[in-house]
Parts: sequence; C-alpha cells; structure tokens
Amino acid sequence: MRVIVVGAGVLGASAAYHLTAGGAEVTILDPMLEGRATAAGAGIVCPWRSAVSDADWYRLASGGARDYPALAAQLAEDGEAELGYRRVGALIVAGEDGGLPEAEARTRARMEAAPEAGTLHRLSPDEARRLFPPLRPDEPALHLSGAARVDGRLLAAALLRAAIRRGAELHRDAVTGLVGTVSRVQGVRAGRREFHADAVLLAAGAWAPPLLAPLGLDLAVVPQRGQILHLLLPGMQTRDWPVLLPMSSHYLLAFDDSRVVVGATREAGSGFDHRLTAGGVLQVLQQALGIAPGLASATLHEMRIGMRPMSPDLKPLLGPVAGVDGLVIGNGLGASGLTIGPYAGRLLAQRLLKGEAEISLAPYDPLRR
Amino acid sequence: MRVIVVGAGVLGASAAYHLTAGGAEVTILDPMLEGRATAAGAGIVCPWRSAVSDADWYRLASGGARDYPALAAQLAEDGEAELGYRRVGALIVAGEDGGLPEAEARTRARMEAAPEAGTLHRLSPDEARRLFPPLRPDEPALHLSGAARVDGRLLAAALLRAAIRRGAELHRDAVTGLVGTVSRVQGVRAGRREFHADAVLLAAGAWAPPLLAPLGLDLAVVPQRGQILHLLLPGMQTRDWPVLLPMSSHYLLAFDDSRVVVGATREAGSGFDHRLTAGGVLQVLQQALGIAPGLASATLHEMRIGMRPMSPDLKPLLGPVAGVDGLVIGNGLGASGLTIGPYAGRLLAQRLLKGEAEISLAPYDPLRR
Amino acid sequence: MRVIVVGAGVLGASAAYHLTAGGAEVTILDPMLEGRATAAGAGIVCPWRSAVSDADWYRLASGGARDYPALAAQLAEDGEAELGYRRVGALIVAGEDGGLPEAEARTRARMEAAPEAGTLHRLSPDEARRLFPPLRPDEPALHLSGAARVDGRLLAAALLRAAIRRGAELHRDAVTGLVGTVSRVQGVRAGRREFHADAVLLAAGAWAPPLLAPLGLDLAVVPQRGQILHLLLPGMQTRDWPVLLPMSSHYLLAFDDSRVVVGATREAGSGFDHRLTAGGVLQVLQQALGIAPGLASATLHEMRIGMRPMSPDLKPLLGPVAGVDGLVIGNGLGASGLTIGPYAGRLLAQRLLKGEAEISLAPYDPLRR
Amino acid sequence: MRVIVVGAGVLGASAAYHLTAGGAEVTILDPMLEGRATAAGAGIVCPWRSAVSDADWYRLASGGARDYPALAAQLAEDGEAELGYRRVGALIVAGEDGGLPEAEARTRARMEAAPEAGTLHRLSPDEARRLFPPLRPDEPALHLSGAARVDGRLLAAALLRAAIRRGAELHRDAVTGLVGTVSRVQGVRAGRREFHADAVLLAAGAWAPPLLAPLGLDLAVVPQRGQILHLLLPGMQTRDWPVLLPMSSHYLLAFDDSRVVVGATREAGSGFDHRLTAGGVLQVLQQALGIAPGLASATLHEMRIGMRPMSPDLKPLLGPVAGVDGLVIGNGLGASGLTIGPYAGRLLAQRLLKGEAEISLAPYDPLRR
Repeated sequence: MRVIVVGAGVLGASAAYHLTAGGAEVTILDPMLEGRATAAGAGIVCPWRSAVSDADWYRLASGGARDYPALAAQLAEDGEAELGYRRVGALIVAGEDGGLPEAEARTRARMEAAPEAGTLHRLSPDEARRLFPPLRPDEPALHLSGAARVDGRLLAAALLRAAIRRGAELHRDAVTGLVGTVSRVQGVRAGRREFHADAVLLAAGAWAPPLLAPLGLDLAVVPQRGQILHLLLPGMQTRDWPVLLPMSSHYLLAFDDSRVVVGATREAGSGFDHRLTAGGVLQVLQQALGIAPGLASATLHEMRIGMRPMSPDLKPLLGPVAGVDGLVIGNGLGASGLTIGPYAGRLLAQRLLKGEAEISLAPYDPLRR
Repeated sequence: MRVIVVGAGVLGASAAYHLTAGGAEVTILDPMLEGRATAAGAGIVCPWRSAVSDADWYRLASGGARDYPALAAQLAEDGEAELGYRRVGALIVAGEDGGLPEAEARTRARMEAAPEAGTLHRLSPDEARRLFPPLRPDEPALHLSGAARVDGRLLAAALLRAAIRRGAELHRDAVTGLVGTVSRVQGVRAGRREFHADAVLLAAGAWAPPLLAPLGLDLAVVPQRGQILHLLLPGMQTRDWPVLLPMSSHYLLAFDDSRVVVGATREAGSGFDHRLTAGGVLQVLQQALGIAPGLASATLHEMRIGMRPMSPDLKPLLGPVAGVDGLVIGNGLGASGLTIGPYAGRLLAQRLLKGEAEISLAPYDPLRR
Repeated sequence: MRVIVVGAGVLGASAAYHLTAGGAEVTILDPMLEGRATAAGAGIVCPWRSAVSDADWYRLASGGARDYPALAAQLAEDGEAELGYRRVGALIVAGEDGGLPEAEARTRARMEAAPEAGTLHRLSPDEARRLFPPLRPDEPALHLSGAARVDGRLLAAALLRAAIRRGAELHRDAVTGLVGTVSRVQGVRAGRREFHADAVLLAAGAWAPPLLAPLGLDLAVVPQRGQILHLLLPGMQTRDWPVLLPMSSHYLLAFDDSRVVVGATREAGSGFDHRLTAGGVLQVLQQALGIAPGLASATLHEMRIGMRPMSPDLKPLLGPVAGVDGLVIGNGLGASGLTIGPYAGRLLAQRLLKGEAEISLAPYDPLRR
Repeated sequence: MRVIVVGAGVLGASAAYHLTAGGAEVTILDPMLEGRATAAGAGIVCPWRSAVSDADWYRLASGGARDYPALAAQLAEDGEAELGYRRVGALIVAGEDGGLPEAEARTRARMEAAPEAGTLHRLSPDEARRLFPPLRPDEPALHLSGAARVDGRLLAAALLRAAIRRGAELHRDAVTGLVGTVSRVQGVRAGRREFHADAVLLAAGAWAPPLLAPLGLDLAVVPQRGQILHLLLPGMQTRDWPVLLPMSSHYLLAFDDSRVVVGATREAGSGFDHRLTAGGVLQVLQQALGIAPGLASATLHEMRIGMRPMSPDLKPLLGPVAGVDGLVIGNGLGASGLTIGPYAGRLLAQRLLKGEAEISLAPYDPLRR
C-alpha cells in the first residue's frame, strides 16, 4: 500500500513511522516551515489532572500517555534514544486561583483506571520547593508521580528518521493541492509536481483547510498562536524537576540541559501571524515568575511560536473522510498535540493498514458539525 | 472603488499606494511570512546592460528605472524618505567570462533612448578599484553613471506605510482562497474570515498558484530560491560605492551603513524550501571573493533567502484575467522585482482605476501559454 | 600629535573625530565586543526635565543637547547623514507616580537658559494620544518641543567612519595593558602588539578599571546592566512620535522604521553578565505596556543588553589623570551616554589639543574620591 | 583546601569537578562570554593519527583519549549522561594531499601502546561512503575504530553542574585581577569584589595574559580564531557516522541530531576579533564540500567562533608558577582542547590536592621560554 503523509509534525511523523513499520510504502511531504505546533509545544504528558471533562478527549489523551513508554522503547530499538522523554512527575499548584481539592479529586477518580499515572501525594510548600527550587515559598502542591515530559522537536525528528530508515521518502515541498476528484483522492500536488498513492493522510495542522476547500470540504480547524519561552539556569541540573502545573493554562517544565520551558499564550484569532508580541511575552513571564519567582535571574534564551490547530469542540479530528475515498485526516490536537499526537498517528496507521483502529474513531469524525 | 490587494511585497505595496492615491478604498492582506522575494532582493536598478533581449521585458525594466526618481520624490512628500535609494552608478566587469565589449555595445545601443542611464566610460583597473576598493587589481571595467540601488525592505515598508496613511487597511492574514465564482471574483477568504471588494489584485508571488487552482486557473509561476549575503566593513563609508556587475548572475552592491550585499543563487526546483544551504553559501562567497578578494576580511553579518516568482518566459505576468471579472494579477517579476515592481504596481493601479494602463499590458497576459 | 583612543563607543568615536578634525594623528583600538553601552543606549536627548539636580552633571547634559544640531550638520558635511537624530519632542507623563507639576516647574526653571529646549505645553489625554497613539487613554502630559532622539549605533558608526576618512586608523584589538611607567603613559599593549603615542585617551567604559589597576589607579566605575527591547509596529510611520518619559527610569521612544524602543533595566551588581533575564524583560514590558497598552500587539523584534559605566556620584569621569603624563580618561557617563558622549568627546579632544577645554573639567576629575 | 578556578571552559570545569570530588572547597568564576574555545571546538578525540610528533604533546593527548570512557562513566554516576560522547571511529582520507600511507604507518606505530585506539583497516571508496554517505565517490580511506567525538558545550556544562552538585560555587563575574603579591597569590578580584582562597587555578584561555601581566608574568598564549559551521541533514540519522579526517587541518564530524560539524579555520593574528568573515566561511565550506560534496544540500544551521589559546610550541601550559605561591595555570590547549582538556583538569586537580600529578608536569611549565 502506498500512502502519502502530508505534514511531518508529531502526528504525521508518528503515522509515517507506524505505516512503514506495518509495511506501507510511505512518501512524506513537509516544507518544514516555521510555526508548526510541534516545535513550540510544551511537551507535558499528564492528562489525568486535566479539567477537560469530555470522555472522547480523555480516551485519546490517557491512551497517549499510557503508550509513551512503549513508543520510547520501540524507537530506541530503531536507534533513536534522544526524545527528551522522562517521567519526572508533576507538581500541581493552586496559584492565584485555588482549586487544589477539586484537582485532587478529579485526578484520583481517573487514577484507578490509569495505573501509569503513578501515585498522588500532598506536599508541603517546603517539599514542593525541594523538587522545583524556583517555586514561591508559600505554595502547597500535589505531586503526581507518573507525569512525563518530552521534547516535541526531538520526538518528531526521531520518528521521521526512523520512518526514513524503514524506507519512507521525505520531500521538503509544500503541498498545494490534492489530486483526484471530489469522491476519490489519488495523490497530491506540490507546485508543478504530482505524487500519487493509494491514500493520502493529511496531517497539515492549521495549514490543512485550504487544501480541502477545493473539494468543497470545510475542515473546522483554526490556528491558535502559542508563544513559549525557554529559560536557562546555568550550572543547575534541572533534568529531574517535575512539570509545574498551576491551575491555569500556563505551566513550567524542565529539560536536561539546565533549561526550563515556560508557556504559553493561547491566542485565538491570531491567524498565521507568526511573531512574538510584547503582550504575549509579558503574559508568559508574569505567569511564570508569579508562581516561580526564583526564575527571575534565569537567562531568557529562546522564544518560540507555534500555531496549534484547534477544532471547534477541543476534540481531535481523526479518521477517513466520508464520501471521499483515499483521504484520511489527522488534525485538531490543539494544546494536547504532544500527548495525543504519537498515539493518534498510530491509530490512523492502523485505520489505513487494517481498515480499523484499536479504538473507534467515530467520535473524531473530521467533518462533524 | 474597493480593492483588495493580496501581498505586500514591493509590487503589492506599490499598487496599494497608487490605488489609495487614486482614490480607491484599499484592503491589504499579507501574513508577512519569511521568504518573500522583496526582502531578499538585491536592489540593483540597472536594466540597460542586461543581456535579456526581450523587448517586452526591457520596456518594463527601463520604465521602472526611469520612474524611480519621481517615486522617491513622491514618497518623500508622503513623509517617507528612507528607501535606501541612491544613484551610485554601476561597474561592469568581465570576471572570468570576458564579454565586456558586447556589454558595452549593448548598453550604448540602449542609452540613446534612455538619458537616465547617464554616461558610460571605460575605466582602468586602478580607476575601478578607486570606486570599489575590494575589487581585484587586474580588472578593467565599464562605469555607467545612472545605475542605482535601493533597499527592497525599506521601499516596500515605505510604500505600505504611505498607503496606510492615505487610508488603506492592513491585515496580517494569510489569504486561503478567493470568494466568488469562476467568472466573477468578489473577495478573498482568510481562514474563516471573508473580505469583499469590487476587485482583487493578486500579488502573492510564488504563493499565488494554489489560490487560483480552485478556479481552474493555472498560473505558470514557480519559486526560484535566492540565497544572498550581507557583509559588513566596519569603519568604511560604502554609501557611494557603485553596484558591481560581473558578467554572470552574481553581483555586489553597497549600502549606507558599511554594508556590502553579495548575491545570489538562482535555484530552480527549490520549491518553498526556505533555508540556507552549504552549497548555496559556498557559491555566493566563491563568486563574490573571486571578483572582490578585498572582502575576505569583511564580517559575514546576515544571510537572507527569498523565493523569486519566475514566469516561464522571464516576462512578468501582469493584468486582468480574461473571463474572470474582478481579478487582476501581478506576478512573475523573477530577479527583476525591485527594478520592475514599483512601476508594475503603478500600471496595475492605473488599469484598475481607469480601465487601462499607460502602456499596453497585452504582452504580459498572466495566463498566456 | 599622536593620540591613541581606546574604545570606539560614542565618547571615544567623538573624541577621535574631533581629534582628527583638529589635526591629531589618531589610532583607535576597540575589539567591538557585545555589550557596550552605546549599542544598547536609548538615545533620548532631553536633559531639561531630569530630576538629577547636580549642577555639574547638568552642565554637561545640557551642553550635549545644545550641541547636537551643530554636530549633525558637521557630520553631514563629512558625508554622514544617517544618525537617527530627530527633534521629535518629548511627552512627560505621570504614570503611577504623580509628580507632573514638579516636573513642569523643574523644566520651566531650566528652559530660560536653554532656548533649545523649545516650548512646554500641557496636553489633554486626547492630545497626548494623538502624538503617541499607544498611550493609555487617561494620561495627561507635558509636551516639550526641543527634545530629540538619536540612534547610538548609527551615531557612533558615523563618527568612527568620519574619523577614519579624516585619517584615523582603526584596529579591532582588545587593549590588554598600558605601556609606560606610573608617571608617564606612552602607549598601549594589545596582546603581544604595542602601539605608541604622545597621549592615550582611555574611553573603555566599564572595561577600563583593570587597565588602570597595574598603575595603582582605582577608577571608580562599575557596570550597570541595561536590558532594552525594540518593538515593531508594521505599517505605522512612527518617525515623528515624541519620546515618552514617565516619571521613572523607564521610557519609550520611536524611530523611523516603525520601531519603538522601550527600556530599560538599571541593574547594579550585574557585573559583566551579558544576558537577558526573565525578570529584566518582564520589568521592561510591564512598565512599557503599563503606560502604553497599545503596544501589546507590537512585534517583539530585538532585545539588547548594554553595560553602562557608572561613576559613584552619577557625574562623568573626564579629564587628565593627575600625576600621570599622557593619560586622559573619559568614562562614567552612566545612563546619559548618548546625551553627553558626543560633547564629552569634543571636550576631551580640546583638552588634548589645546591644553584646556571650553568648560572646566575640574568637577569631573576621574580619580576624585 | 579552598581553590578558586578562573574559567569554566572544559579545562576549568574538569578541574573544578575533580577538585570537589577530591574534597576541595571550590569557587568558579566565569563571565560566560561569547568566543570561548570550548563552545566552538570540534570535539574529535583521535590523537593517534596526528602528524604532531612531539612526545610531550602526545602523552597528554593520548592520555586524554584513554581516559574518556572512565570520565563518561563517572559523570553518568553523577547524573550527567548527555555529553554527546560516542566512539564512532574515524575515517582518514587523503583529500588533495596524498599521504595516506604515512598516516597509516604513524597510526600503527602508536596503536601498539594504545589498545583504546581500536583497529585500523583500509576501506575501499564504496566502503568509506557507506560509513559517511556525503563523501566523494573516489576516496579510499583508513578506518580507525577507537576514535570518538564529544560535544564540548555539553561536556563543559555537565562537568560544571556535577561540580556544583558536589558543592562548588559558580559566579558569573569577569575576573579583573589577582589579589596578593608577586610571590603569593591569595585570591582574585572581579570588579570591586574580592574572592580569597588557598590557591587560584587560572584556566582563562586566551583571556589569561592580562591577568598575569601586573605580576610581571608574561604568559605566551595568543588567541587563534576558529570559525566552524554546523550543518543539518533533516531526516538522516547521523549519530554513528565516523569522524572524517582529511590530511589537513579541516575535518567533519556528526552528532545525534542529523547534525554535521565542519571546521575550522586557524587564524593566527586574529586577536579577539569575534566575528565570522566572508573568507573564513568560504574556506571552511570549500574544504568540506571538496571532500564531502554530498553536503551541498545540507542546511547551514549555525556558525560558531572560538578563540583557541595557542602556546608558542603547541604544547599545553600546565602547572604551578615557579616563585609564585598559590598560582596554578592551565592553558595553551590550542586545537586539542576537547581531547586534552578533561585530562589536564584532572592532572591539575591532583597537583593541587596531592602536590603532584600522576604524570610529571615539568614539560608543560607555563612560563617556559
């Protein structure tokens, strides 16, 4: 089976990897533009405390978290050990908003069916600061041991390389249109070149809708800009610091190289306006230094921007397009792309190779209204 | 009259400026992406010695050069004096290839009808080096006094600001489709937003074709990547250095701030692969230091990439689309964008406002085969 | 007379320029390191409303402001017209702190002797916003018409080029020591090279003290880090916006290219730790967006860091070193470097060429305790 | 024992690590300036084929290579596993110059006493390209299996963090002078602060001489600029590619993340002029693409500059300063810093803690003439 994968973000790269592993002949197209969501994603894998209550969303998010260790092991066998993946646990703190008891109750309720979430403990402010030293001194916290973090850029690059090693082809071309009819897609066009295949998996994030419009399809996904900052704490080994999750959309997480990532704005209506703004950076720094004032002296090292593809109801858009043979869509992962992406890629590969995925994709119909 | 201008490169910005000056109500859409041709263009205004012999191309190129002083004066009245525009003259040198006599003959033949080209003199190697000190010592040259250089980024920004000051509106949105039917365009779509107007001027460079494909229109323009380098010579006043034109597609030109620009690759088949390559940078430096070895110690300060929109026959694609009301195209300026762009924008504004331009646009039919 | 100028920031470059203009044979040494104060200075020329009451400081600051137009004219004759200098006026606003009446009284008192300060008017919030559109809506202001702004990088580069054109020599070497004895300086060492001259003008800012320590001299200057941000407002012509001066050490000013500069931190005890910090950027953005919330959507374009050389009493350190022949110092301009620097350079050139400057340098004795 | 380590490059960081491991109380000072040799070093660990014949140099270089596996294991126990260290082997190719037989003879002669060098085989051009695919097609090679590569930035950061975790203190201050007398050093000065200790280990690379000059000591080390480029090959797993060593001072080596490093210039007389030059980048690209033309389409991703501290006879400058109590120097590692640095740091730590190192430091007397 020949499959074209449009988009080499974490979802597309995972799908390409699982497709090649399953025997498909895969061609990947991606112009590697700035602004993709994967590169600017935070990389927190901790769905269990989320306030999102939708069961369909949770099925994907918890499935993604559960499968990470196996994926990491599989990639290591393919020679890809550098994913920035580590189960560092999470610190859940109240911040300005209160609400720690509800977060605890919500998390505990989910943990019974999710042993991979580990254990949940209440920590005193001192215990919390021992784990995440820049935290403000008066902050009690919950500690959830099974949470992990991952580096989206490294993960997507590793999946892509592993797919290529297993035979996939990569072209750095921007797909400019689909080839075929309104009832049967047979390939893609990239400028004046055409590529043909049995199926096209469209994993182009916020850039997907104009490719579908000529077929009369309206994919309800819009870009949501996220501005995210990388800080350095030279001389500090931050590798084992837990993910820090205040009760808001902001967060902090640390990586191996004395790096702390703080994010992120969620800017609806931003369009594709790929830039840092004074107000966005202010917001991120205010939130981060509010909860972790010890970061004030950290070096502001890098600033990234990503365009998250948002669906209208927060649930991903995954699966074949009814009425159009040969077209499968993976999109709409929103702010959960690094949790859900690798799993979603595997599900779509199963759907393409076997006709069905291990869980039903019906709730994620990409053209649902 | 309401006009939407898609693309704020030098052509689109010029058209917007002349349209507002002529009384139109103008909306400009541009996501200001990296890689536009305008930002990476060299900015040499010297069509008279060009080896391109096509009369239709030359009419636009020489018209563009002739009109620059008036445009600069008009913009200065609008409060925009910083264009990096200066008539510094050009040094034409043989480089490895010989051919100076032909260049001289060709240029002289054109100068009769082009007094703005100034005067042409043969220079000894010493005289040439006095004008452009890093030149190699053994190189005779022709000097053409009327050649000029301009900073494409400054020019486009100034045209855009002047248009806005005269009432144009700017949106940083990526246009994702045209609104209307195959026979009548009524506006554009940008994600989930729509903009309506009496006419749409599509000046989106290499990004235009996918916007036209849904109408069944095949605009024959492809991106040609140019990699271009900016060098600094701290302490040297380079403002009056002439443009240096070897007998190849490479060139060198200097700006006010001790800056020398050397370029550029012409990479067909690059697609939108927006990146510097080891081979591209090597080629540009080899050519530049071959002719001007005195630049070896210059600081490598900045590296830019632009995607020139190339038409199949080198001639621009300018004018209304036959059979589609309300749609005008400006595209295909190739490597002459900064020479032709401002003039082409004015011609298209005339066509929209008055029904015809001061010269016939027939040879530039955007859909010619 | 042969003079070595150590440091090509605005003070050193000005001195070199005036020295060559006065007939001296000048050698300039500067490694052009990151972090110099000149490159990160704001460029506000408005000493009249300053809360600093020291008469000696004010003499230099007002002298510097008064002389700018003549300097700009002189440089233009030398072919250097691009200084980013413009008398755009200043808006003085109270911000959180109140105090506008005192600022008005203080300024009026000084204006009598300073006609170049122009006129002072009270503006309503609406009038103020018309001049500086991102200002918050409720903010009355004073407008002082004679204030100016200048681009420190352009100014220093222009002074340096003009000096070189008049015969000065530039070496990009780091001076590592003085040559001579404790009573007579005869040159400088740069690594293993030596340069000899009749006098050495040491204008090395915060980097100067270790060069003097071997002579037993303790220059009381320390680096004060300033973090400063450049914002862009694409499409807006900001050229004529006034400098915005809240009643604090923060400020906003605009340049020709849709650029607004907001700054700056004043970080004592920073040493030479040349980096952006999370806390510093937060502080600058909080102050700027607090007074000018309309900048929230501006692009965060560039971030600079400078090490201001601070004297212990805010007054510059200018003049010959008692007891050490051949050694003259220019330093300690603190946060007023772009106001005072060009003038101080002229005064030191006069002192070297004629034995005395047009005003007494006694209050600025560089080794005063 | 209290020790101040000046400089946190690979030598200083290694010394600090071994000193803390041996029980010393360590204070590290480093302003973390741009341009340090460690950050721009290539990271090739392969002394056995070197054409340098000096036995004293070889003792350190081969000792450094031999000790790497143990150091990596020790750091892993300290929680530092990310050094970019891997024994990938080396390909030795003749390039333009011939000389492969001599290289083979030289290497074989050394291998008897160096089992860690692994095995040496002749490879056909095809075999060589299988290991390093961008290599030109006609190039026979030698393969030496024990060669390794390491990422200097990661290694120095890991050593520093491990030292800090074991109790060392880090200050980001620039040391501006030594404290004490010409016969006894008791600490260092950093601006207006002083730090006191029983001994000072001066590992400040090319920046060291001015700190010693006030004591009348002339350390014969000068900066040699190296410009080095990082290329990316997206989608390719380059982790196991061997180091590529042509018979010149240029080389290529690959890292885990699809990265190939090509370098480097060796620019004597550069002073501290920290910048990329047109001529330097041209030279590096010409050499790299000459031997490995397959890199022409690689992305030019990053360009670094380092100032190698060169001694006059290529041998390092290591050990106590005769006649000055409390002062130990580590310097002059030249282009071998990442091979020798960690080992030299250990030797100097031994010298400080036990009065003597495991090998005699006599040949490396830092003040030898």
